[in-house]
Amino acid sequence: MLFKKAEQKRLVRREIQGGKGEAHCLYAISKGEGPEKSRFKMAATMTLDPGASIGIHTHETDEEIYVILSGKGMYTDDDGSRSEVGPGDITLTMRGQKHGLEVSNDGPLTLLAFIAE
Amino acid sequence: MLFKKAEQKRLVRREIQGGKGEAHCLYAISKGEGPEKSRFKMAATMTLDPGASIGIHTHETDEEIYVILSGKGMYTDDDGSRSEVGPGDITLTMRGQKHGLEVSNDGPLTLLAFIAE
Repeated sequence: MLFKKAEQKRLVRREIQGGKGEAHCLYAISKGEGPEKSRFKMAATMTLDPGASIGIHTHETDEEIYVILSGKGMYTDDDGSRSEVGPGDITLTMRGQKHGLEVSNDGPLTLLAFIAE
Repeated sequence: MLFKKAEQKRLVRREIQGGKGEAHCLYAISKGEGPEKSRFKMAATMTLDPGASIGIHTHETDEEIYVILSGKGMYTDDDGSRSEVGPGDITLTMRGQKHGLEVSNDGPLTLLAFIAE
């Protein structure tokens, strides 16, 4: 199954998970709209504005991977630890765990997000 | 859980799945080495040489997503159809399906690959 970039669903999301600012998103697989028999429930590219954030939230029933493609941010992990993240860094949030991300004020941050259930 | 780029496992793979040429890989999660309770069984960045390929292979027990980050290639989908792919294109291969990828001779191709089980 091929999701060409031009056919992915564009969406502007605001204050994701209680965070700040805007994210310009491109969904290859939107939540609840992917193939039913796939474990992958979301696949998206998100560009967050400088200073924007994804609020700390728990993944009760699924897991999420972030891949930072460009920009810099501060990642909050399940144990509350905070780490600077940049291009090529990958995070994994398993079922029952929480995470959040604050984008640097210096510029936007683009990440890929994948949810598996 | 955070996998910093500098701590990811470097590996050169040759003739992946019976394909051609070399791939320079960076594994955040290596097959069989990830957290046992996670559905994500592999997360890797792979740069394939110009003209290299990933041979057509079937995912018997798991699923795979590719995200093309840079470069151009020809993707073979489960139904045998072939499509040109480039940056931002995303593919999904579900359990029981097959896929393969040939990189253009014009330059290398970098992709992200994620396996979920």
